[in-house]
Amino acid sequence: MRPACFLSLIFVAVSAALAANDCKPSSLNIPGAPFPCVHPDGRVGFRVSAPGAQKVQVRLGGAHELTKGADGLWTGTIPAQVVGFHYYTISVDGATVSDPATGTYFGGGWYSSAIEVPEPESDSGYYAPKDVPHGEVRQRWYFSKVTGKWRRSYVYTPPGYDSNTKTRYPVLYLLHGWGENEQGWHIQGKVDLIMDNLIAENKAKPMLIVMDNLNAAKPGEDPSLYHARSIIARATPADVPPPIGAPPPRPAPGSAPALRPGFPANFGATFTEMMLTDLIPMVEKNYRTAPGRENRAMAGLSMGGMQSFQTALSNLDKFAYLGGFSGSSGGRGNFDPNTSNNGVFADAAAFNRKMKVLFLGIGTAEGPGTKTFSEQLTKAGIRNVYYESPGTAHEWLTWRRCFNDFAPRLFR
Amino acid sequence: MRPACFLSLIFVAVSAALAANDCKPSSLNIPGAPFPCVHPDGRVGFRVSAPGAQKVQVRLGGAHELTKGADGLWTGTIPAQVVGFHYYTISVDGATVSDPATGTYFGGGWYSSAIEVPEPESDSGYYAPKDVPHGEVRQRWYFSKVTGKWRRSYVYTPPGYDSNTKTRYPVLYLLHGWGENEQGWHIQGKVDLIMDNLIAENKAKPMLIVMDNLNAAKPGEDPSLYHARSIIARATPADVPPPIGAPPPRPAPGSAPALRPGFPANFGATFTEMMLTDLIPMVEKNYRTAPGRENRAMAGLSMGGMQSFQTALSNLDKFAYLGGFSGSSGGRGNFDPNTSNNGVFADAAAFNRKMKVLFLGIGTAEGPGTKTFSEQLTKAGIRNVYYESPGTAHEWLTWRRCFNDFAPRLFR
Repeated sequence: MRPACFLSLIFVAVSAALAANDCKPSSLNIPGAPFPCVHPDGRVGFRVSAPGAQKVQVRLGGAHELTKGADGLWTGTIPAQVVGFHYYTISVDGATVSDPATGTYFGGGWYSSAIEVPEPESDSGYYAPKDVPHGEVRQRWYFSKVTGKWRRSYVYTPPGYDSNTKTRYPVLYLLHGWGENEQGWHIQGKVDLIMDNLIAENKAKPMLIVMDNLNAAKPGEDPSLYHARSIIARATPADVPPPIGAPPPRPAPGSAPALRPGFPANFGATFTEMMLTDLIPMVEKNYRTAPGRENRAMAGLSMGGMQSFQTALSNLDKFAYLGGFSGSSGGRGNFDPNTSNNGVFADAAAFNRKMKVLFLGIGTAEGPGTKTFSEQLTKAGIRNVYYESPGTAHEWLTWRRCFNDFAPRLFR
Repeated sequence: MRPACFLSLIFVAVSAALAANDCKPSSLNIPGAPFPCVHPDGRVGFRVSAPGAQKVQVRLGGAHELTKGADGLWTGTIPAQVVGFHYYTISVDGATVSDPATGTYFGGGWYSSAIEVPEPESDSGYYAPKDVPHGEVRQRWYFSKVTGKWRRSYVYTPPGYDSNTKTRYPVLYLLHGWGENEQGWHIQGKVDLIMDNLIAENKAKPMLIVMDNLNAAKPGEDPSLYHARSIIARATPADVPPPIGAPPPRPAPGSAPALRPGFPANFGATFTEMMLTDLIPMVEKNYRTAPGRENRAMAGLSMGGMQSFQTALSNLDKFAYLGGFSGSSGGRGNFDPNTSNNGVFADAAAFNRKMKVLFLGIGTAEGPGTKTFSEQLTKAGIRNVYYESPGTAHEWLTWRRCFNDFAPRLFR
């Protein structure tokens, strides 16, 4: 038998063995990696090579022990996970690292491994690449006068943007969450594919989507509270890694609406100033944007939702659409229509005239805060849309679904 | 003392301690990570948290042992490295993983950690972001009829592309190396910043640069030889990880010019077919390209250079410029002007009329093969440009410099 033929037979045999247990490689794996793999019932199989290690764990939700085989490979299967995108880490004798078998995704302040537990095809089609016209996601460098630094933004341009040279487009400013960055929405969120599909079905208006980085600090301001709070990245060995992808802890009811306990009071303010001074003018100079507040929307997830509410509600002359996905200015039990957000909700009729769509989205596994906030708003006469993603947590599938429900409502 | 103030003092004290040894965080680190850091003389300091590990190494060139401190942190300083971008891994009790303190870069078939040993500012300015007009790097999805799959391409568009709506631009097709992907040139290579700076100084003509993925397999073809040959990704535990970023082994002198020993003979052929059938038509449909072979160039690094020579030299009706950076069709001692590349060099005068620029670049630490090939071409009457990057190896700084020398020669 020729060597190539022999190798092919091994390949076939190994493939068959892997396929026998119905565990399919996660779509986020590096090319050719059979693990991690996802069973039809949502259980996830892992395999890690660590021949000299004493203890290897997968940290996804809780910690899951892997078992060492004679070949030095550690394997294990963890209980069924809900559908969607999950950040995770592996721990090798106490070293918290990403699994080298997956792509890496910026979350929790560093490049984490992740798996995707697929939805049924009937549900996930809205973010699948299809034979429809495709837009682009454009990397754009610009200098911020406010922070004194170069920044990187990504701009989604819809199909036809380059050929319809007379058309001007409305703009959605869309923010990631804590510990993520300007790549989150098009890498983890697949926002470009969702928009391509919505536009192809005539469900959403063609628009520009600007995805920037929440992190903005002026010279002298401390940016470090936004960084990975892990013993790897920080100077303080006692600092313990946070659960990856966890939402920021919520302030106690009645406390000031700081974006995060311990954050400088001006943290969100610096982003707002940078956005108004640097980002929006850069976008409106370089892209064919339609003018005025009714062609400008802002939304974000988690901390990006909090930031969007902070920015847009204090600049209603600039934004007519606002969305918070698993994050807003409410939901913490401290809502007062007369005083919250500097009283912007006090005159409900005036607010409703200005705000075309106020959108609140949440995964049903995230708790009742957002629903309560929506009800409080409704009770105060504030028109709002409440969207629930069934069975999902504080994770990207919730936010893909939120976006898919939100985008068709814009610029009508 | 208020807690915030106390924390600030700790921060200042730690920063001072870190600064005292002149070791500056690598520019590729995640935000806030003090390690890895680079000393002025090129030595690199590492710190890894692995409290339960018995043995932790940094693998950069060779293996370097780190030493465990009482705090569970492993530290060490490795000998001076040459300037430039270096992939590396850490080994924790035998697990080969990326260092969680750096960004991750697709090389060697997976997402590897990396450091950048900076050049003096006078040398590195050509890839620094400057106050000049900036182009864009555009992510573009397209479907390949040849492979039957969706592919992702990145297209650099020069400053002014959107406003000069009547201008058509020449196109450079630019390929990464083995185990890298379509992101390599703009992430590791900083090609967009190099072009922005060249154009601002009027040193290069504005052009489109299309950066695609070398990996192309038809249904039924085995793509796996392109994948990470690591025990993590493959089904064969005995398979040993390759040195990250290493060039493919060279065929013995006189052997067939396979792209890689063991590769299917048609590996490069499938990419060529995909490029001519799918990629070029997609680009010419969606971007304002100038027509004809004199407005089309192809280049690549390492295996991408080999692919470029294979594709362009067999399609001289389509390309008038060709570059190989640390990779071409020669340099292996088997050049024969009458028969190599199907005899394309046999009539030197005819070849020189067609090929406007034939460019060969190499780092001086990579050996004499490319220089020998250039001399063989010259001896055979083939006009070519030979460029050497002083003191650099088979790494991205070599390729940034090659590109910076190559791009100004195009489309004149």
